[in-house]
Amino acid sequence: MIEDKNQQRTKLSDIGEFGLIDHLTKNFKIKRKSTLKGVGDDAAVLNFKDKNIVVTTDLLVEGVHFDLSYMPLKHLGYKAIIVNLSDVYAMNAQATQVTVSIAVSNRFPLEALEELYAGMETAASIYGVDVVGGDTTSSTSGMLISVTAIGEVVPQNETYRSGAKPNDLLVVTGDLGAAYMGLQVLEREKEVYKVNPQNQPDLELYTYIIERQLKPEARKDIIKLLEDLKVKPTSMIDISDGLSSEIMHLCKHSKVGCDLYEEKIPLDPQVISTCEEFNIDSTTVALNGGEDYELLFTISQADFPKIKANPNLTVIGYMKEATEGAHLVTRADTKIPLKAQGWKNFND
Amino acid sequence: MIEDKNQQRTKLSDIGEFGLIDHLTKNFKIKRKSTLKGVGDDAAVLNFKDKNIVVTTDLLVEGVHFDLSYMPLKHLGYKAIIVNLSDVYAMNAQATQVTVSIAVSNRFPLEALEELYAGMETAASIYGVDVVGGDTTSSTSGMLISVTAIGEVVPQNETYRSGAKPNDLLVVTGDLGAAYMGLQVLEREKEVYKVNPQNQPDLELYTYIIERQLKPEARKDIIKLLEDLKVKPTSMIDISDGLSSEIMHLCKHSKVGCDLYEEKIPLDPQVISTCEEFNIDSTTVALNGGEDYELLFTISQADFPKIKANPNLTVIGYMKEATEGAHLVTRADTKIPLKAQGWKNFND
Repeated sequence: MIEDKNQQRTKLSDIGEFGLIDHLTKNFKIKRKSTLKGVGDDAAVLNFKDKNIVVTTDLLVEGVHFDLSYMPLKHLGYKAIIVNLSDVYAMNAQATQVTVSIAVSNRFPLEALEELYAGMETAASIYGVDVVGGDTTSSTSGMLISVTAIGEVVPQNETYRSGAKPNDLLVVTGDLGAAYMGLQVLEREKEVYKVNPQNQPDLELYTYIIERQLKPEARKDIIKLLEDLKVKPTSMIDISDGLSSEIMHLCKHSKVGCDLYEEKIPLDPQVISTCEEFNIDSTTVALNGGEDYELLFTISQADFPKIKANPNLTVIGYMKEATEGAHLVTRADTKIPLKAQGWKNFND
Repeated sequence: MIEDKNQQRTKLSDIGEFGLIDHLTKNFKIKRKSTLKGVGDDAAVLNFKDKNIVVTTDLLVEGVHFDLSYMPLKHLGYKAIIVNLSDVYAMNAQATQVTVSIAVSNRFPLEALEELYAGMETAASIYGVDVVGGDTTSSTSGMLISVTAIGEVVPQNETYRSGAKPNDLLVVTGDLGAAYMGLQVLEREKEVYKVNPQNQPDLELYTYIIERQLKPEARKDIIKLLEDLKVKPTSMIDISDGLSSEIMHLCKHSKVGCDLYEEKIPLDPQVISTCEEFNIDSTTVALNGGEDYELLFTISQADFPKIKANPNLTVIGYMKEATEGAHLVTRADTKIPLKAQGWKNFND
């Protein structure tokens, strides 16, 4: 669909492992003061003085997390970095370094990996992180990307999943469900393409939701905003699996309950119209869709005046005693228990 | 060959991703003072005061780096940790934390992953490192393990691949070639097993070399020894790809040449006898075999008296001007240029 059939192809076996690492990482420039030594030795060397370090890691597997028939490799590289940075920001920390390992089968030429790394370099550059190490190896089938992200935070700013108290407000950034609906559109176009490869899809109605799927952003800006507003969340998590799962994580780790108000869930108009077109309930999409990479956090009610005017932040509920459980309060004012769905990627 | 056909099998799809992470990591206890927060949030939180941090990462792919027909899962878990710790020690640093991500297909039951994690836990426990995070996901085929290791080092002790000077002595720990010959024996037994599954292999003659392949150790002890001896290597690297490649790395990064003496290369008697049996040249095995996870380093000649009596350390050559190149000086006193081979795992 997006593939260029005439692209240049250099076999990976013509380069060898050592040559490949050098080649793919040669554009990675060191930007962070804390990076003393980047790619090229047994390990990277980092220095952080009075700050704590946060570390997080994610695996992206072809056929499970991405489909190269509609995911351009540059976007995939970008997204692989973003999903990890999002976890760092969810600690109220600044992302500083990443390591990147890839396993690829021989079907990928060098030029494909260059595209992938160009996307990673773009994300690293925009978010101000250094790529300080990695590994490249062959796989028996498909592509797999493993990214580890490192960040720094002054100890008093650390924000965990635990820490939410009853009566704290539940706040979400941006809007939800767009990445999932973008995926639905892309999957549909893939089926159309299979039937008629000459068909040129008109995706103009879906630009926002497709971009949210193919090129998500992490909310580095929110960490800065919270600092400027002098708001320290009592708990925080990023939305990778869907709002419902993430709320359950906060409740479990903080030992609290929650009321989430359906009418407050922020949805983009394109999500609403595409949900109507696909005959899917938009609340279900927001609750279980995932891949939004927005931040979900709780604040003390005393901090409400500081955030209430901000268009990036929406109060969607409040925390309760654990014994009261976690519920969705629907528009019809009925209460439905929330369920953690997560990625069901071990299903047969 | 080793598989127990009657083992208990719990489907991964019965547990789900969140349950699986909790289940597999519940035995990981925090041992390190620098670990403020381990598994269970968006990221781990670490604290290092006046030390630098080293980070390294490795991917192990089924069918490329390991073969489960003779690699018990517990050993595989152990080895996955060891190969990363080895990179940390090669920086003259102490390993402190690791993150572990795995991608597995549905053919693995829960009990298989428990074995894998038990091996990881054993290695983490023996080497005193904390498992602080990770990711579990499904793969479309086979198993893939991604480990990132973190360590700490006081700045004046950092040892890079660069730093070797002409006339520095080239020193290697332990002995070489055993892991490769262990693999040859295991591959042969696998072929025998294919022909006759009733055949009980007698591996008593090969216990050392098979253990070196299936359950390698990282040279944490050498970092302590160097500290006790007050020897700071001028450069250091671990031997994962083979002596020849690693010497070439030191030469390239340090901009020096090298003379390596064939007669000095330390070989275990079991390696020599197995090489004779397989009709393979033992020097070739030591140079190109890999997976020894010994340390290779250079020291100033002034430090020679401090190391010369130590049975763990063997001087195998010395560094020269870059213009003189890197050579093997054979027993017949001829000079052969060294070549970097590395893992040729992108070959068709």
